[in-house]
Amino acid sequence: MALGTIGNSEFDRDTALSPRERDGRRADYDTDLSAGWTIFGAVNGGYLLALLGRALGAALPHPDPFSVTAHYLSASRPGPAVVRTELIRTGRTLSTGQASLVQKAEDGTEVERIRVLATYGDLGTLTDDIRTTAKPPAMPPYEHCLGKEDGPVAGLAPEISGRLDIRLDPATAGWAAGTPSGRGEMRAWFGLEDGRPADALSLLLAVDALPPTAFEMGLNGWVPTVELTAHIRRRPALGPLRVSITTRNLAGGFLEEDAEVWDSEDRLVAQSRQLALVPRGQ
Amino acid sequence: MALGTIGNSEFDRDTALSPRERDGRRADYDTDLSAGWTIFGAVNGGYLLALLGRALGAALPHPDPFSVTAHYLSASRPGPAVVRTELIRTGRTLSTGQASLVQKAEDGTEVERIRVLATYGDLGTLTDDIRTTAKPPAMPPYEHCLGKEDGPVAGLAPEISGRLDIRLDPATAGWAAGTPSGRGEMRAWFGLEDGRPADALSLLLAVDALPPTAFEMGLNGWVPTVELTAHIRRRPALGPLRVSITTRNLAGGFLEEDAEVWDSEDRLVAQSRQLALVPRGQ
Repeated sequence: MALGTIGNSEFDRDTALSPRERDGRRADYDTDLSAGWTIFGAVNGGYLLALLGRALGAALPHPDPFSVTAHYLSASRPGPAVVRTELIRTGRTLSTGQASLVQKAEDGTEVERIRVLATYGDLGTLTDDIRTTAKPPAMPPYEHCLGKEDGPVAGLAPEISGRLDIRLDPATAGWAAGTPSGRGEMRAWFGLEDGRPADALSLLLAVDALPPTAFEMGLNGWVPTVELTAHIRRRPALGPLRVSITTRNLAGGFLEEDAEVWDSEDRLVAQSRQLALVPRGQ
Repeated sequence: MALGTIGNSEFDRDTALSPRERDGRRADYDTDLSAGWTIFGAVNGGYLLALLGRALGAALPHPDPFSVTAHYLSASRPGPAVVRTELIRTGRTLSTGQASLVQKAEDGTEVERIRVLATYGDLGTLTDDIRTTAKPPAMPPYEHCLGKEDGPVAGLAPEISGRLDIRLDPATAGWAAGTPSGRGEMRAWFGLEDGRPADALSLLLAVDALPPTAFEMGLNGWVPTVELTAHIRRRPALGPLRVSITTRNLAGGFLEEDAEVWDSEDRLVAQSRQLALVPRGQ
């Protein structure tokens, strides 16, 4: 397979947008949701977040997502879609905008799939001061983690798993063998299958591409995201990413998933949290 | 002072809204930002979040905030303001909406202060299943923490501190004596000065009412919030709340503040994260 590059990869092609019209602070884009990023027919939320993130990067005066919040309103389907963006505020270092992903229902009416609110900046202008106390996740090296050839992760979601190079920490892969750990943890090495390097947009995919922590808590079934907020804190260095997801509070039918993404230089490049529904099929 | 109740308290009066007009899925409300919730002239972000949360509770078919994201666009000033709401989606158990807080600038033009995207539900309908691993913060009892009479917290922000009963954990109050711990932590008992019990709306205030963690990291000055997302996970029980805020990643001129709010029954009632700018006056 040809090596993917930023701008020429499955991920870039499947998040491509065509400008449709621009009216002052509003701009619309046509796109096509690829069936290659689905899990049991539902389009992956991280892929959709990246696609909306790309639209806002085109619509706003600053290029990079700093804080992106998505509310998932209805299940997106592979096929044509429109992204509508609005520029809310332009500042010197940050700008804020919103975006909607809409599709046509079978009866021709328009259905909104996702609403996004986001602030963008330029990651290239960030200062070098770092006073972080966060530590990279303790996990085995890439070659000791479990990839597609090792088990049922691929079988669980054949479409999207063909696009991703996810290698699960064996300590959080018990669910795949029917022996979940009971802990709300999921960790993996993360890359794109065609080798495309990570950037701010692919980090939006990375925060919502691992199996749900609910699996390791012994719960099976779909874990619908209500809302997800991602903070992109730094441009990722070349090399594979590590993604660590933690759930501390499963209560009242809801759970949160806190994700951290670390790059090959041991820098925390993204933080996210989502609120999701506990699977009903327990 | 008369004991505050939910519906009859400083907090309720200062977040009161008058319906102005309703047009299909849009509804506008008039309000007046109170000078009583300011810090050096800037209106507190948690107070504003609660006010916008009240507007969405009125505008949406569900009463309680489950996930609320606010992007702070420009500094709000005490005085008249308008909240514009839009109903985005109505579901059986959840509904989603957005809101804008706008004020008139001196030249009469309209300036947007805050944009909010939120999903609402009914906390009264949540199931009783709890499988949380989160633990309440380790902190001394209320009477061993530092209140207004103990030092400079009140002097730092006289207006808002007159409305709040905040008792800082001495372990995170070193900054007030010029000896910050160096750790990105802030913990306090939290209540309203007039004794009004906590509810979902006052939790939106609680997540952004403590001194910034930056103070304990030895940084002084204003810490402007770019974006804050709060998840309300449960109706708080009667009694004082504990708020614990942690910053793990100060980098590139930005920092996150992760807040947890615990009630008197040791239940995690709210989780929030904000992205903020590192103070320049280091």
